[in-house]
Amino acid sequence: MGQKEVVLGVDIGGTNTKFGYVDKNGSIIADREMSTEANKPAEEFFGRLHAEAEKLFLSKSSEWKLVGIGLGAPNANYYKGTIEQPPNLSWKYVDVVKMLNSWYSVPIALTNDANAAALGEMLFGAAKGMKDFIVITLGTGLGSGIVSNGELIYGHDGFAGEIGHTIVDPNGRLCGCGKRGCLETYASASGIRRTAEELLKSPEPPSELRLIDFEQVTSKRIFEAAQRGDKLALQAFELTGRYLGMKLADSIAHTSPEAIILFGGLAAAGDYIFVPTKKYTEEYLLGIFKNKVKIIPSSLPKANAAILGAAALMWKQLLKL
Amino acid sequence: MGQKEVVLGVDIGGTNTKFGYVDKNGSIIADREMSTEANKPAEEFFGRLHAEAEKLFLSKSSEWKLVGIGLGAPNANYYKGTIEQPPNLSWKYVDVVKMLNSWYSVPIALTNDANAAALGEMLFGAAKGMKDFIVITLGTGLGSGIVSNGELIYGHDGFAGEIGHTIVDPNGRLCGCGKRGCLETYASASGIRRTAEELLKSPEPPSELRLIDFEQVTSKRIFEAAQRGDKLALQAFELTGRYLGMKLADSIAHTSPEAIILFGGLAAAGDYIFVPTKKYTEEYLLGIFKNKVKIIPSSLPKANAAILGAAALMWKQLLKL
Repeated sequence: MGQKEVVLGVDIGGTNTKFGYVDKNGSIIADREMSTEANKPAEEFFGRLHAEAEKLFLSKSSEWKLVGIGLGAPNANYYKGTIEQPPNLSWKYVDVVKMLNSWYSVPIALTNDANAAALGEMLFGAAKGMKDFIVITLGTGLGSGIVSNGELIYGHDGFAGEIGHTIVDPNGRLCGCGKRGCLETYASASGIRRTAEELLKSPEPPSELRLIDFEQVTSKRIFEAAQRGDKLALQAFELTGRYLGMKLADSIAHTSPEAIILFGGLAAAGDYIFVPTKKYTEEYLLGIFKNKVKIIPSSLPKANAAILGAAALMWKQLLKL
Repeated sequence: MGQKEVVLGVDIGGTNTKFGYVDKNGSIIADREMSTEANKPAEEFFGRLHAEAEKLFLSKSSEWKLVGIGLGAPNANYYKGTIEQPPNLSWKYVDVVKMLNSWYSVPIALTNDANAAALGEMLFGAAKGMKDFIVITLGTGLGSGIVSNGELIYGHDGFAGEIGHTIVDPNGRLCGCGKRGCLETYASASGIRRTAEELLKSPEPPSELRLIDFEQVTSKRIFEAAQRGDKLALQAFELTGRYLGMKLADSIAHTSPEAIILFGGLAAAGDYIFVPTKKYTEEYLLGIFKNKVKIIPSSLPKANAAILGAAALMWKQLLKL
């Protein structure tokens, strides 16, 4: 029997980096987590990553054959193999592929985390067998990966899929990107918190969230309140679904996907976010698209989704899927 | 010397239908126009189209070889080869490919007019050599065709590319589709007329358009007034460019194109529409996309663009471009 072919999947986050070895069926053979320490130079980080990954690999190297490396990282450019001006990392410009090539001779590819999530769903998750779909990651911000004709849309410059920065209201909330009214200031963990903050300015409805300091009002806390039937929390979810649904209708008008897959912390709120999102998406859809597009949760295990997505980027390339 | 290979390109419009024979370099060998007579059954129309096209073909048949047929039509479905519920035709559901197969044994494909326009620009016009671009047709309505990775985006159901029905303002102008605030109610020949109508309700600024009956205020008339420096007409163009630019920034965030090509009657207003559109697109763009995306006019001859687009659909298939 031959060796088991594995891909090293790496998810670089602002605080922690996860990596693991993934076979072509999406089984994670082994994985680890390390701190990114993004204040230190990129060279230092990739040196550490290589050392840690090798240590994990060598413990089982006779059984495994490394056939490629896939990475997901903020502001990663698929075409150039670089990370450029990442928002939560101090690195300015890192030629990741070149850097890793000093240790590895296998194919290496990287893309941003939301694109990696989309490929993870396509190869191993809720989008298996689909050729046209969109993945929306609802974390602190809102990321997205768009697949059409079975291919991820990278666009001319490799940065396509920024649905989080489409505009809900040109005079709306200030976004971290400098613009006003971006979707991610409404539909994300931080967005629902801002919505709750606005609702709390009115004297009605009553809410348990009025009894605690606003510093303690997190998206999780709003979710818990909603589960207890708190009217204001339910309103916050309703509004969040309305903003998201309105813009998802725009996205559907662009690429007419079979499904939109919601992923990440806020998506874990289940019906509280899915019900209003579906309702308002349908409300704002052009007739020919109505009642056609599924809005469904991710089916990847949450803890390992990012590793699976990063590995899927490389497996798609290797298997020519 | 062999025969000249030609494709029959057909553009079906609500009033007139144009068709012509196009070689692989985009030269139109011969073309004709006929009335669509859309109130009569589709069978009648396609019978007439076949007879007229054959007459034109037979006049030179020893020189030509027909290798395919491409059609552009409202609500045409590429996957199914059908026209479904076209807005300006009385036909409900027409299996176009099946119908034409009773006369022709060459490959046949159809898509909507804006998608055909996009392929026309890619093979013969302003998007030659581009793999990622968007064509916006600014006619009575607003159509669009999106190309990513060198392929037209048809989407799961074949109806992708409806940027005209993305939403500027959910409480905005009533659209023919039944929704409110669709982009095409602002950025189109009819949209700029509605904008002028709103501006005319204020007593300021003075305008030559106040001196004529509003029935006579067409997009052409607004353009002519703008050329004479009419302040209200210039404001109408500025606002039209603002609405369009805001939504084009959203489109760029989706697919990150190299260029957006503006086509059709309103695009013929040149700087009056291009200058504000470019300005506001840049204003609403996410930083990573700024100063990257060209907004340029179509380079296809206006009179034949639709025939060239329809033929391009088939040539792309035949030449495996």
